[in-house]
Amino acid sequence: MAHKTDRPFFITFEGIDGCGKTTQLEKAYDYLTASGLTVYKLREPGSTGVAEKIREILLGKNTISDITELLLYEAARADLVDTEIKPLLENGHILLCDRFYDSTTAYQGYGRKLDIAMVKNLHRVAVGDLTPDLTFLFDLDLKTALTRRGQNPDRLESQPEAFFERVRQGFLAIARVESDRVKVIDASRSIEAIFEDVKEQLTQLLGLK
Amino acid sequence: MAHKTDRPFFITFEGIDGCGKTTQLEKAYDYLTASGLTVYKLREPGSTGVAEKIREILLGKNTISDITELLLYEAARADLVDTEIKPLLENGHILLCDRFYDSTTAYQGYGRKLDIAMVKNLHRVAVGDLTPDLTFLFDLDLKTALTRRGQNPDRLESQPEAFFERVRQGFLAIARVESDRVKVIDASRSIEAIFEDVKEQLTQLLGLK
Repeated sequence: MAHKTDRPFFITFEGIDGCGKTTQLEKAYDYLTASGLTVYKLREPGSTGVAEKIREILLGKNTISDITELLLYEAARADLVDTEIKPLLENGHILLCDRFYDSTTAYQGYGRKLDIAMVKNLHRVAVGDLTPDLTFLFDLDLKTALTRRGQNPDRLESQPEAFFERVRQGFLAIARVESDRVKVIDASRSIEAIFEDVKEQLTQLLGLK
Repeated sequence: MAHKTDRPFFITFEGIDGCGKTTQLEKAYDYLTASGLTVYKLREPGSTGVAEKIREILLGKNTISDITELLLYEAARADLVDTEIKPLLENGHILLCDRFYDSTTAYQGYGRKLDIAMVKNLHRVAVGDLTPDLTFLFDLDLKTALTRRGQNPDRLESQPEAFFERVRQGFLAIARVESDRVKVIDASRSIEAIFEDVKEQLTQLLGLK
């Protein structure tokens, strides 16, 4: 029978495109669900009616200035937090989210070279004091990540390699500053080997077994 | 023959819905064009491809949280500033804009009761140090404004009266703080009487005659 943990958990999955975070999120979902827990999956940008419309603008073939892009990501995030994340957490659920504000820090802040403090201030406008309980950062070298990606890159996936290198280093910089929350996982290994690390962190956080 | 003034001018038209600002903008456009000047008209939210898509989300029948609404207005504004306003001003043109950031301060800040300092910080994220050279605030009591509006109110026009009263008072508060830039025009009079005031401000600012 599905049941709850004794408090809500908000867990995010981060990394550059092709790092395998979505695969690991699915495995985490299956694992936690099989453990009898009620778990919700969300993705960014998107997951709500308004946010999916914003996602279409962001990932479509539009010319968008860097600041507009940043504000659109935060707008989609604010909607997701207000309409989905906060109500689910208030009801004590476990949430797994494919990307969250660390992606914006890494892509728009480090990738686009915007002011990092300004970007982090915008996170607070969008989400208030909400912070993930645990963030997985799937770290992978650029060459391997590129070979793993799909055939039809979206607007952001079409950026030059130097952009993604800045994004990768940006994620690692976040993990250095917030090492308690952000766990760096070596994503160059097999799916199963990576998931062993994920599972260990999850069982520890949730007090499973 | 169309010609330029010796420097660019950015002039905004503000007020609650039904105050007559769009009519006055059109009259100002005709007047300045007839004076031989090259003038551009813009409107907010909108005027660019991305901003018009954001406008559809904002004015459509969507459920949108207050913070998401605020961030979407700023995103549309950032796009308009980057792709239209800045290039036109750099080329020395005169711009007339139907609403700008004062509308966001009044509607989202005062109307939705968001933190005014936070809202004004977001303006700076979206537009940098750009400030209108002159802002017309067409002030009108709520009852008269309501009778002047169209038959099919959009999402924002459907707000309760108390909301618009806060918006009106918010605009007046902005004008008190920035009295050099923001000129309050009594919009309860005839279109021609109102335009006499507008014309006087314009001729003074642009050094016409």
